[in-house]
Amino acid sequence: MRFELLTEDTGTRARRGRLHLAHGVVETPIFMPVGTQATVKSMTPEQLLNLEVEILLCNSYHLMLRPGSETVSRLGGLHRFMGWDRPILTDSGGYQVFSLSALREINDDGVRFQSHLDGSSHFLSPEGAVDIQIALGSDIMMALDDCLAYPASHVEAEKSMTRSMVWANRCQAHFKNRQPAGQSLFGIVQGGTYSDLRTISANQLVDMDFPGYAIGGLAVGEPKPSMYEMIERVEPHLPRDKPRYLMGVGTPADLVEAVALGVDMFDCVMPTRHARNGWLFTKNGHIVIKHARYKDDPDPIDSTCGCVVCRTYSRAYLRHLFVANEILSSVLNTIHNLFFYIDTVRKMRQFIELHRFDELLTDTRRTPVQ
Amino acid sequence: MRFELLTEDTGTRARRGRLHLAHGVVETPIFMPVGTQATVKSMTPEQLLNLEVEILLCNSYHLMLRPGSETVSRLGGLHRFMGWDRPILTDSGGYQVFSLSALREINDDGVRFQSHLDGSSHFLSPEGAVDIQIALGSDIMMALDDCLAYPASHVEAEKSMTRSMVWANRCQAHFKNRQPAGQSLFGIVQGGTYSDLRTISANQLVDMDFPGYAIGGLAVGEPKPSMYEMIERVEPHLPRDKPRYLMGVGTPADLVEAVALGVDMFDCVMPTRHARNGWLFTKNGHIVIKHARYKDDPDPIDSTCGCVVCRTYSRAYLRHLFVANEILSSVLNTIHNLFFYIDTVRKMRQFIELHRFDELLTDTRRTPVQ
Repeated sequence: MRFELLTEDTGTRARRGRLHLAHGVVETPIFMPVGTQATVKSMTPEQLLNLEVEILLCNSYHLMLRPGSETVSRLGGLHRFMGWDRPILTDSGGYQVFSLSALREINDDGVRFQSHLDGSSHFLSPEGAVDIQIALGSDIMMALDDCLAYPASHVEAEKSMTRSMVWANRCQAHFKNRQPAGQSLFGIVQGGTYSDLRTISANQLVDMDFPGYAIGGLAVGEPKPSMYEMIERVEPHLPRDKPRYLMGVGTPADLVEAVALGVDMFDCVMPTRHARNGWLFTKNGHIVIKHARYKDDPDPIDSTCGCVVCRTYSRAYLRHLFVANEILSSVLNTIHNLFFYIDTVRKMRQFIELHRFDELLTDTRRTPVQ
Repeated sequence: MRFELLTEDTGTRARRGRLHLAHGVVETPIFMPVGTQATVKSMTPEQLLNLEVEILLCNSYHLMLRPGSETVSRLGGLHRFMGWDRPILTDSGGYQVFSLSALREINDDGVRFQSHLDGSSHFLSPEGAVDIQIALGSDIMMALDDCLAYPASHVEAEKSMTRSMVWANRCQAHFKNRQPAGQSLFGIVQGGTYSDLRTISANQLVDMDFPGYAIGGLAVGEPKPSMYEMIERVEPHLPRDKPRYLMGVGTPADLVEAVALGVDMFDCVMPTRHARNGWLFTKNGHIVIKHARYKDDPDPIDSTCGCVVCRTYSRAYLRHLFVANEILSSVLNTIHNLFFYIDTVRKMRQFIELHRFDELLTDTRRTPVQ
């Protein structure tokens, strides 16, 4: 893996870069749609290509349980399994173990948990998380971390962060030992909402020398200013020549704020999940398509949007599909919302190249799209 | 509307034709996917175009209730509403009134019924059915008929058929009175499983001179031989130079049998509904994709199939999507099953052009795909 830092904005910390991965090139800033169970919900790979999606995130937790990472491996790896030949990033599984599974028992060796699907018992260790991601064959894999709930005391956060750093080290050692071709391992900065812990975590990870650094454990319930503060405090400790990935964030406005603070990569279920619930992003804020006011509305979702849905369908038709519980409702809404996100990162790249990112930031703060 | 009879098979009654409609040309024999609520379930119009779908069927009953035919009309008609600019055939609504709605009261004027959605009361008359289909703007509309349950006595079947013929006449008179541009009205042969009634019905309709004739009230529970017999008895009474449409039929093998008996047009929910239930057509019979035997199966659904699903995905992946209840399961399964049907009619056209339809018929009977 190679990261090119193409240019840096002058008025903000925004960066324009390029990731060279085994399955292709990714322009940064980048938004990665979430393909939880080896599919971005309701999308064909062809539709994702038409949207100019460059990289997907898939969830190791879901795939290790069903169909199983070894099954995916026998079938030629995740890319072949799901018919997607561009880059894929996988998470470690840790976050879902902490948020979805039952009966978790965590110790220094890893975490024992019960599947949310069938109650079966599983154990995830730092080495196991790497093995699973090697079996899946993702371009970028993530170190297993201990996921802290919010709120947490300084003592709890420190203990959790310390464990995450030990695990990151073990993941890296196991990764180096196995030497998987065409795969890279990122470390994850933890430390809750405590900037001193975040600083320690970042410095320890940088000492371990990862090819990329994620900021994890944010957007878990803490106030927005606290999230932005953590990014701002962590960023100066991360090397300029490595990509930075803010995990699980966020609204389009969050993306702009975080890019201004030096973040390069994002993933979030928001565009796809909101789409299925009929919540559609527009330049002037969101609309909820099921509302009766759209029953006879001949206008597109957003008359300034260039996506195929806005060029083809009325709000009235999209409301009809939603109310009638048609599958095509999820499909078209997802296309629109993903286009909105992809368009947001495209626009950010342009403003960075022009060294005018502060203008986009000011504009975003004036009418934040939530 | 104009129908060109291009050629007739020598060994069977199979015909190769071409329908010229307001929204385009349709090659016959043709299969029309069903777009009940102004969408072929899970398909984008683009995916239908890629499948070489030439004409859709939409259901007036569903659309009159939701979003309402006048709403569709105000939004520019059904084609514009659903983003489909090729031909559309609409049914009259009669069949769904009889099969879906509650509290039906039928008399010579029409049928009063309660919506299956909200219990609201509606009245559908022959003239009303024409008006609804004019508002929708379909290329081909169907006369309102009285739909007989199976089994029915000769007396019941005669009464029902007679009413259908009166209604067909009233539909035609109203249609001529309103003179809608770019739309045609087909009559529907009824008479249950009684060939004498079917003959009377066909002759009466032909006397009224419709641009096309449907055979209705079949595939409602009667034995297959009875269905084929009715087609065989009716066909000689229908004019050679007009298209014949067998409503709501059927399996791929049914299509081949009916084409051999002189039918040109078909619609059926089978490929799309079966797809969503994980029932997939192959040259060697169907497979049920959820079965555990496909868990690690790297092969495509059908190795002889040229569809994009068979060229891209393993049975293992398709089983995974189905078991994980992913929307993409419905999408990919629908693409495959529709391709199978479209491919079946494409093949039938070729065999008719070669005057070798009997070979295809023999082959189909050897391994009928159900």
